[in-house]
Amino acid sequence: MATPHTSAAFSATLRVHLDNRPGAFARMAGAIGEAGGSLDAIDIVRVEHGKKVRDVTVLAVDEAHIARITEAVSGQDGIEVENVSDRTLLLHLGGKLEIASKVPLKTRDDLSMAYTPGVARVCRAIADDPESVWNLTNKRNSVAIVTDGTAVLGLGDIGPAAALPVMEGKAILFKEFGGVDAWPICLATTDPDEIVRTVTAIAPGFGGINLEDIAAPRCFEIEARLRETLDIPVFHDDQHGTAIVVLAALQNALRVVGKRLEDVHIVVTGAGAAGSATARMLAAAGAGEIVCSDLQGVLYPARPGLDPFGAALAAQTNPRLLHGSADAALASADVYIGLSGPGAVSVEGIRSMAADAIVFAMANPTPEIAPEEIEDLVAVIGTGRSDYPNQINNVLVFPGLFRGALDVRATAITEGMKLAAALALADVVPRDHLEADYVLPSVLDRGVAPAIADAVARAAIAEGVARG
Amino acid sequence: MATPHTSAAFSATLRVHLDNRPGAFARMAGAIGEAGGSLDAIDIVRVEHGKKVRDVTVLAVDEAHIARITEAVSGQDGIEVENVSDRTLLLHLGGKLEIASKVPLKTRDDLSMAYTPGVARVCRAIADDPESVWNLTNKRNSVAIVTDGTAVLGLGDIGPAAALPVMEGKAILFKEFGGVDAWPICLATTDPDEIVRTVTAIAPGFGGINLEDIAAPRCFEIEARLRETLDIPVFHDDQHGTAIVVLAALQNALRVVGKRLEDVHIVVTGAGAAGSATARMLAAAGAGEIVCSDLQGVLYPARPGLDPFGAALAAQTNPRLLHGSADAALASADVYIGLSGPGAVSVEGIRSMAADAIVFAMANPTPEIAPEEIEDLVAVIGTGRSDYPNQINNVLVFPGLFRGALDVRATAITEGMKLAAALALADVVPRDHLEADYVLPSVLDRGVAPAIADAVARAAIAEGVARG
Repeated sequence: MATPHTSAAFSATLRVHLDNRPGAFARMAGAIGEAGGSLDAIDIVRVEHGKKVRDVTVLAVDEAHIARITEAVSGQDGIEVENVSDRTLLLHLGGKLEIASKVPLKTRDDLSMAYTPGVARVCRAIADDPESVWNLTNKRNSVAIVTDGTAVLGLGDIGPAAALPVMEGKAILFKEFGGVDAWPICLATTDPDEIVRTVTAIAPGFGGINLEDIAAPRCFEIEARLRETLDIPVFHDDQHGTAIVVLAALQNALRVVGKRLEDVHIVVTGAGAAGSATARMLAAAGAGEIVCSDLQGVLYPARPGLDPFGAALAAQTNPRLLHGSADAALASADVYIGLSGPGAVSVEGIRSMAADAIVFAMANPTPEIAPEEIEDLVAVIGTGRSDYPNQINNVLVFPGLFRGALDVRATAITEGMKLAAALALADVVPRDHLEADYVLPSVLDRGVAPAIADAVARAAIAEGVARG
Repeated sequence: MATPHTSAAFSATLRVHLDNRPGAFARMAGAIGEAGGSLDAIDIVRVEHGKKVRDVTVLAVDEAHIARITEAVSGQDGIEVENVSDRTLLLHLGGKLEIASKVPLKTRDDLSMAYTPGVARVCRAIADDPESVWNLTNKRNSVAIVTDGTAVLGLGDIGPAAALPVMEGKAILFKEFGGVDAWPICLATTDPDEIVRTVTAIAPGFGGINLEDIAAPRCFEIEARLRETLDIPVFHDDQHGTAIVVLAALQNALRVVGKRLEDVHIVVTGAGAAGSATARMLAAAGAGEIVCSDLQGVLYPARPGLDPFGAALAAQTNPRLLHGSADAALASADVYIGLSGPGAVSVEGIRSMAADAIVFAMANPTPEIAPEEIEDLVAVIGTGRSDYPNQINNVLVFPGLFRGALDVRATAITEGMKLAAALALADVVPRDHLEADYVLPSVLDRGVAPAIADAVARAAIAEGVARG
């Protein structure tokens, strides 16, 4: 049985004062190891009064673990902890993104061209020919990342301000991997009418809208209405980004275990934005059988208390009309896809799956079931996290998808474009390189976004949504 | 009498094919000069078939002038113009701003701290302590530049998309001079209720709101309501930025001519956003007499057809109850401030002013009266343009003003902060350096924004609008 992963995401730098005698450093390292921490970078700060002052970075499993490690180190004879800096919080200090100019602003000539009076001619050119806004401004490359903060990661409704770190993170990933300029728009309203009105109002300067972390079922209505209203792509990433990356991962995982999508039984936990969109996309791609479940258990058409969205999903899935828990539905299933929260299924449930089972436990930050607890029971495990193998994360999709859509100034993102993105993503890993712990390319793979962009742009042209 | 300025703002690069014989280049240069153009950079592209292909950049007075120069060059024997590239339009191709990451995104550790799973802890920290959004995100440095495109430069109501080049220009100036991250928000609505609702909805991610190019009188109501609603600075730059820079310029111009603000008679053309805010700020600063006028002539309280905003302005100004045209009001005036449009006053009107008159003709891109036509009649001339001396442009104000407000996380921008900004700006030019053609620092002066920021931050603290 593996121990839980330590991770840079949960790391801290301890400033320690060590007695300048043999053995002090070894005792500190030993204490960190015994407490389950991993020793990372070690720096010397200064030597004073017979003590060495060091900055010692440790990796932990979670936040509480950092505290336990600190306590273990403090308890050692001849060692004193001056302070503890949380590396992740430090990284976020002052925010993670900024704007930059693409033109020089050093001389009066520069100013007179970039701003007044020269800019007036550029404005007139757009007023005379509205389509030229795509050439003469950054609209062609701009995406609004819009959230109301109601379904942020696994944290739920934490509000628009607390959602901002995720949106900033997403914005810099858009730029890093897709060359897309995305800006966070965190909304002080959760009312669908108000959200639709607001996004419609701010749309003229953007080439696309990425909806993010908006809770179901409001997200369905909001996206549908905005797609109707706007002439630029509107894409709720929690739904479709997730569906695309899961389909790509599943295609490749099935190749690893030698099964076909048409034949497999799939159980999905989570019938919110991600779960329902993924189930629908898998169904559209021809998956054999899909059973969805929420906190009340498996969805079937007559289940009491289902809202219209749940009822529609139930009607499209669960052909054997299973009742009961997700765990029970896992019996003999080939694939489990968790898009819910920790504890959605049990080790016993996973154990009851068919041979060569595939488990994608994607709840963030804590997976539905710890990979360490099931690694001997199934053939392929994926999570949403960057600190396990097979990271099934939307970051593989959204930069390339929007890159492709923006490149052809698409008016929408169609089903064909999404399917093209999934297939292109799966194909980034050459068939003969596929392994149980390598079903998707690394999120750091620079080839992913261009491959997806190219496929998406071609699909947009084929489906008639590319602009002139 | 001076000839009109040629300017980089109206420049083009001509690709010309010149016969490879003596005299061709001289003929081209002569033709450009005779047509009133200035020869700028000259590059050789290639030599082929007994011809030299050159890229020749010329500066012109306006757009039509570029066409006349091109025609003059084409008309020469042995010279052929292959094409003409407008340098300003070229500069704007693809837009002028982009986003950039402030954190590394090269390794899995980077991703796990900047994005999932690490970012969840940052979100929780903000959810637990809402004020920490100012530390842990870029809210502290972000400003939304909001326009509805109804009063763009001198161009009027050209709509939100055509306004985008100005907003992008403003955003990069914010960054270049104030280190502020501003993002353009171009609104697909001109309804005040809708604008107030939209800006309120998008406010959580921003540390300030810069309203821009929204037509009067709607701009007054929109700003007032947003100041009421939001706990971050809301600043309509066309009003207050203009008022601040005019007050600063006037203080220094009066020092040059040896007059005092309390004693001078001032005529303002333009009773819109900029004109009315400037008149009010000058009055608050103690100006002797102010007369405002619009297209119907001078504003006086009983004038038929005045809207409530105009009536309020009339009641605060024009103590002698003048009637008639702006030109007539100029008789014996000490200061003329044009915040209207070309042709608002005549050379004869300017000639009727008192000795050592001060003229700020700030309409953009074409001043109320050409400086070339009055340079022998008055003591000090300023315009809004970067290609004349004494550029009286808001770019001197907004970067430093918002820098100062953001530095103390101000909840508003008060009258005291605006006055502090004006005085700080005037003081950037040492008294003994003041000249008729040097009443304001250059817009390229890197000392301006920090000086204003410092004064504004102190004023915010003094007035109790600085946050914790």
